[in-house]
Amino acid sequence: MESGKRNVLLTIEYDGSNFSGWQKQPGKRTVQGELERVLSVLCACEIKLNGTSRTDAGVHVYGQRASFEGEFGIPTDRIVRAANNLLAGSMNNMQIGDVRIVRAEEVPADFHARFDAKGKRYIYKINNSGNENVFRRNYEYFVGKPLDLAAMRKAAAQIIGKHDFACFQAAGGQIRKTTVRTIFDLSLRACGEEAVNARRGDIEISVIGDGFLYNMVRIITGTLVDVGLGKIKAEDVAGIIESRDRQRAGHTAPPQGLYLAEVYYDIENMLKNKDIGK
Amino acid sequence: MESGKRNVLLTIEYDGSNFSGWQKQPGKRTVQGELERVLSVLCACEIKLNGTSRTDAGVHVYGQRASFEGEFGIPTDRIVRAANNLLAGSMNNMQIGDVRIVRAEEVPADFHARFDAKGKRYIYKINNSGNENVFRRNYEYFVGKPLDLAAMRKAAAQIIGKHDFACFQAAGGQIRKTTVRTIFDLSLRACGEEAVNARRGDIEISVIGDGFLYNMVRIITGTLVDVGLGKIKAEDVAGIIESRDRQRAGHTAPPQGLYLAEVYYDIENMLKNKDIGK
Repeated sequence: MESGKRNVLLTIEYDGSNFSGWQKQPGKRTVQGELERVLSVLCACEIKLNGTSRTDAGVHVYGQRASFEGEFGIPTDRIVRAANNLLAGSMNNMQIGDVRIVRAEEVPADFHARFDAKGKRYIYKINNSGNENVFRRNYEYFVGKPLDLAAMRKAAAQIIGKHDFACFQAAGGQIRKTTVRTIFDLSLRACGEEAVNARRGDIEISVIGDGFLYNMVRIITGTLVDVGLGKIKAEDVAGIIESRDRQRAGHTAPPQGLYLAEVYYDIENMLKNKDIGK
Repeated sequence: MESGKRNVLLTIEYDGSNFSGWQKQPGKRTVQGELERVLSVLCACEIKLNGTSRTDAGVHVYGQRASFEGEFGIPTDRIVRAANNLLAGSMNNMQIGDVRIVRAEEVPADFHARFDAKGKRYIYKINNSGNENVFRRNYEYFVGKPLDLAAMRKAAAQIIGKHDFACFQAAGGQIRKTTVRTIFDLSLRACGEEAVNARRGDIEISVIGDGFLYNMVRIITGTLVDVGLGKIKAEDVAGIIESRDRQRAGHTAPPQGLYLAEVYYDIENMLKNKDIGK
């Protein structure tokens, strides 16, 4: 038995297909709801999680972070296995559940998973192979017409940097003090036949920033796709950002192509990852 | 409008996760049931499908074949798109459904999708990386302990050829006249870091045969896994086959790692594919 108040930081991965997003909502299956239920059983007290990112329904996550504090008997190093067993048990006939705790670590009492985050990396997966794929229907955005990757890269270059990104913000999110954000990296990788499991025509967008507005990555992706289809000119993107006009930016790409890849608590580590998507 | 009786052969792919298998059953969502419902609407008459393979619940398919005959107005070349639109429409909020017709072609009146098949190829996917993966939970078999691939290959070599495979037949299938089958190829491929999307520790089993008994590929896989774990000796596999004793063979591997990859109507084409899994 450990004693005293502890602050525990979790790293979590989940397949968003069958969740109504991260945030707890009455009567809906959410990631926060499932985790709090299971952790409350293990800790024998009511657990409240502070999640870093409120992902939407259908959005996937390789590395969500969430912290919780309290006095409880279970040692930190037993939480991962015990919680994953309970999470898997709530699914029928599956080897593991669709949410899994990857790591649990003790952090200082004043650490907060969301407020202390310095930035995040998202990945967006596009299928531009010309062939829809039943196995990938919940895990990528199928764009049937061929995309002009060079034009998309030209557009992406104008998004990198510190800008007022009001044009890439959807209505309906929390009110933010400012719509200025810094995008450290925005790169597009085309997957070819060199990779066994990659199909020619897969495009992966990787974006690192100090913060993101509501639906920002999905609107950036939709704008890049519209550029790739010739509906928006690559050279107009800087002007669209300057206009702060959501109507001039592209469509909102669907949730199932979006993955929260990593949350950074260390700026150096974040900047080191700038080339990861290339 | 075309007229006269036609015989149409379909090539179908499906994600088996949310189906109670291929075969139509009252009150259950099955692939045959979904397809017959949609095709009956398109053809404005009751359609009965002859499927090549009755896949179990959770088993996936890259290339199922099924034929149907009748007199109907819709041209063969319109069936694919029209049926896929209806199949997608039956899912909520998805770009495409979890079953898709890949091809529709007219075949001679005496052609039968099942009786004319000369053989099939199956793939079985194992995750031996040491890390479970929420995104792959319905698409592979997670084996936590390290597998001895060399021993598994030694065992596989004894299974290739024409044998009485009674030891690899589960109870509960149709009664067959004979349990003798020919396995033309059984190969194991280990995926390493050279492939972008492959993780070290992925193992893919590819098997080509002229026919398969009930659960045969899953029992062969379970036997190879038991050899890889040291529970069965590689050199004992020939004797196990000779014994015709199901109790001496290994466990039945779970359905979600199994993929029906291809149905062959042409022996030469089948034998040409012998090296495909290497």
